[in-house]
Amino acid sequence: MQPLPQRVRVGWVGTGVMGAAMCGHVQAGGHAVTVFNRTRAKAQPLLDAGARWADSAGEVARDADVVFTMVGFPKDVREVYLDPGGILSVARPGCILVDMTTTAPTLAREIHEAAQAKGMHALDAPVSGGDVGAREARLSIMVGGERETFESLLPLLGLMGKSIVYQGPAGAGQHTKMCNQIVIAGTMIGVCESLLYAYRFGLDVEAVLQSISGGAAGCWSLTNLAPRIHKRNFDPGFFVEHFVKDMRIALDEAARMSLALPGLALVHQLYTALQAQGHGKSGTHALILALEKLSPNPDDVPY
Amino acid sequence: MQPLPQRVRVGWVGTGVMGAAMCGHVQAGGHAVTVFNRTRAKAQPLLDAGARWADSAGEVARDADVVFTMVGFPKDVREVYLDPGGILSVARPGCILVDMTTTAPTLAREIHEAAQAKGMHALDAPVSGGDVGAREARLSIMVGGERETFESLLPLLGLMGKSIVYQGPAGAGQHTKMCNQIVIAGTMIGVCESLLYAYRFGLDVEAVLQSISGGAAGCWSLTNLAPRIHKRNFDPGFFVEHFVKDMRIALDEAARMSLALPGLALVHQLYTALQAQGHGKSGTHALILALEKLSPNPDDVPY
Repeated sequence: MQPLPQRVRVGWVGTGVMGAAMCGHVQAGGHAVTVFNRTRAKAQPLLDAGARWADSAGEVARDADVVFTMVGFPKDVREVYLDPGGILSVARPGCILVDMTTTAPTLAREIHEAAQAKGMHALDAPVSGGDVGAREARLSIMVGGERETFESLLPLLGLMGKSIVYQGPAGAGQHTKMCNQIVIAGTMIGVCESLLYAYRFGLDVEAVLQSISGGAAGCWSLTNLAPRIHKRNFDPGFFVEHFVKDMRIALDEAARMSLALPGLALVHQLYTALQAQGHGKSGTHALILALEKLSPNPDDVPY
Repeated sequence: MQPLPQRVRVGWVGTGVMGAAMCGHVQAGGHAVTVFNRTRAKAQPLLDAGARWADSAGEVARDADVVFTMVGFPKDVREVYLDPGGILSVARPGCILVDMTTTAPTLAREIHEAAQAKGMHALDAPVSGGDVGAREARLSIMVGGERETFESLLPLLGLMGKSIVYQGPAGAGQHTKMCNQIVIAGTMIGVCESLLYAYRFGLDVEAVLQSISGGAAGCWSLTNLAPRIHKRNFDPGFFVEHFVKDMRIALDEAARMSLALPGLALVHQLYTALQAQGHGKSGTHALILALEKLSPNPDDVPY
């Protein structure tokens, strides 16, 4: 496998909350970036900074050494890679394809095999760290695929993350991301139920957070999301609808292994309710809204 | 309220996993310590280091300026404070009584009132941080009671913890601890289900932990307990039976506020099963054992 040139021709598909920040770091690293996004306006800051626009996901791949994708759902991943005119039908042999979307491990393996058949190299490289991590280039990136491909890509991945770990063959990155999401499902229900308890009893929530963030309850969600909940700011760091999708994938994979995950199943149901209540585009910490609805405040006092 | 002398006469009841470490820090701070514990052997290291032995909880309080209690269950707290010959019948007016056990907020208020009636000052000051936090004097201490009493006690509490926060009137420390335990219930189910998924799929668990501990799934339980689970070491940092008790208290308090906490209720049930399976004296991270039992590994391969 050839080493990447110093100035890599990068194609980037998907410039949403996460993708735009990540692509920006790659661009700032001096690489030549071509972008495509369904909603062009969201790519504008990258275009203003010198990126080229392409009219489709496939066109992004035309002259690229490396293509990154960061889209929404497995069906979007399938479309941008496997549809006629998609990345796999346009990219050149030797091109490295890196899907950073959280998607099904089976789909990651499917893309990996299709890429291999065309002399391309595919990695699944989902991330964790949320919008904050993306902005600060402090993401955790968990990578599946060939180790050699992974190693050649380290300089580029290093522009976006601080913890970049090879997890095994194709799909292993996605499975690791599932492990990540399973933990988050737990931390999120814990944080939201805890805050709800504090509000209902009338505790001083800032003092409570000061006490519990530093002990055995300490977690990323408590540090980063509880303050947003306290300000009733439910803007998305990470979309509810994406998290529902991730949990569905994890539950499907677990079921395939005859593995019951009762905690994850409960949290998935509560998020499904939250989405049904119209909060699919809210941030995951909006879970507290579904819990509030479950037990309406008897005094009907908004806090 | 009189300031405490520089060398405080401290009475200490309860020298289990947590209590022994905490009392050791107070003793190392140069204070005169008298201890009582149901099982005397557990107090031996403190006695060897110069502590005096008393034959009952009440006797610990006889000449004390401050009495700390760190026992097991609400019924133990009730017994050491309120029974005939207990702390409240022996301690002198002006004495400060500090219950660091996690117990019911209602019991904390009852003790506070009984103490007030005798001219004593009671604080509820439960802690978080587990055995590691206790050993390293890095506990989070959440305090309820009169603010003046809290402030006079800061030098002593500072020997045991790094985050010491006044939470409000009597019982507020315990309520804050409930908020803490509710988060932990979530982090624990998340961590255990995540590891189980990783093991069943055959991921490299150490690589997984490296990836997910640094991102949005990061939490104390993942950093401190997942490695113990990986070594199949279920020695108690914090006892399952104590955690079951804490969650019961939180669920009772929530029910009193007409508040449903479905996540906490599920985790409480799984821990109740774990205790029924004979793991009451294991550490809380043994939750994975109950989850394993729920979906037996089809290959029956111990990992």
